[in-house]
Amino acid sequence: MSETGTGKSKQISPAVVNRLPRYYRYLTELILAERFKISSKELSKIMNVTASQIRQDLNCFGGFGQQGYGYNIKQLHIEIGKILGVERGFTAVIVGAGNLGTTISKSGLFIKRGVILKGLFDINPDIIGSEIAGFKVTDIKKAADYCIENKTDIAVLTLPKDETEPVANMLADAGVKGFWNFSNMELKIDKPGVKVQNMHMGDSLMTLCFDLNN
Amino acid sequence: MSETGTGKSKQISPAVVNRLPRYYRYLTELILAERFKISSKELSKIMNVTASQIRQDLNCFGGFGQQGYGYNIKQLHIEIGKILGVERGFTAVIVGAGNLGTTISKSGLFIKRGVILKGLFDINPDIIGSEIAGFKVTDIKKAADYCIENKTDIAVLTLPKDETEPVANMLADAGVKGFWNFSNMELKIDKPGVKVQNMHMGDSLMTLCFDLNN
Repeated sequence: MSETGTGKSKQISPAVVNRLPRYYRYLTELILAERFKISSKELSKIMNVTASQIRQDLNCFGGFGQQGYGYNIKQLHIEIGKILGVERGFTAVIVGAGNLGTTISKSGLFIKRGVILKGLFDINPDIIGSEIAGFKVTDIKKAADYCIENKTDIAVLTLPKDETEPVANMLADAGVKGFWNFSNMELKIDKPGVKVQNMHMGDSLMTLCFDLNN
Repeated sequence: MSETGTGKSKQISPAVVNRLPRYYRYLTELILAERFKISSKELSKIMNVTASQIRQDLNCFGGFGQQGYGYNIKQLHIEIGKILGVERGFTAVIVGAGNLGTTISKSGLFIKRGVILKGLFDINPDIIGSEIAGFKVTDIKKAADYCIENKTDIAVLTLPKDETEPVANMLADAGVKGFWNFSNMELKIDKPGVKVQNMHMGDSLMTLCFDLNN
């Protein structure tokens, strides 16, 4: 093995960053299939990019490959996981315990990626106190205090559009650094260190419609 | 106005295609805000790409702008909608009426994009016959016949991973051309004219974790 990665990313380009979750996903599948090594050629087929692109990508964060041997899947998985923060054990709360919030809380989305779901909050008195995915839904009024006390890393926002920005700002003030936003709007929070991922499910449907139309 | 688009796309690059749903989304918001025109400069700020990129993008499918005036929002919205197939009235069924299928069926995802949801199918006898989002859930055994008879365009797959590929192939044989796949796997269907969009919600969470970690 030429050199092992440090889990530190020097300057990874946005294009490579975008591919990292896919690498991680495929490598997880290969591990489950009890595979040990993979060539850049095979990986390139799965990823649908060229083999030289694969080599370039993986060089970005230290080489894990050996010429003529290929990549050690488990090691690559661990190193990419480090870069993606999987072992950091980021904590998350869901704000908005409606249909989508409930569905997400019951999915395997968090645990598979090393994110620890800690609770759900809602504004609706009919929902507050009910149990979802093993959590008692808490009054949204208590969300900021909770996040301060528990140093929560991520808030998942499954709220009506109008409520998203004020709630996000409140939680950013409470120290939350990551926002995974499902309200169909472009959430922006101007606060140092705060990161937002806006999840636009409908864009994927529209791309499919484009493909069907052309 | 220099020239109106035809709704036909000559050769739109994948990068532009990826931006189209976002254009459409922002233009919808501008219309709701009762705006009539917009400059490439303002649009570039909203889209977070350069103004010259905006002009290039919009030139790809015919110019809708006039120098010094900007773009006519409504017209641009209509033309991009045509390219995205919004007025085609694509029909869709959801296969898998569990938590996610139910949530999606109750969301505004389809109607906003001109897609007409026609029904839900499931394999579970406890769910078959129950009403979700105004539809009676139908036995999955009847899905293929339904899609043949009704010339269904799109199948939304909210199924366990293992069941996704066989169901997708069955429906592709029944003439379904578009697959919006939510099972966390890379669905590929080798059939002429069949298009797949794999929705990987978790990739967005991982990108957020990367951002927090770096």
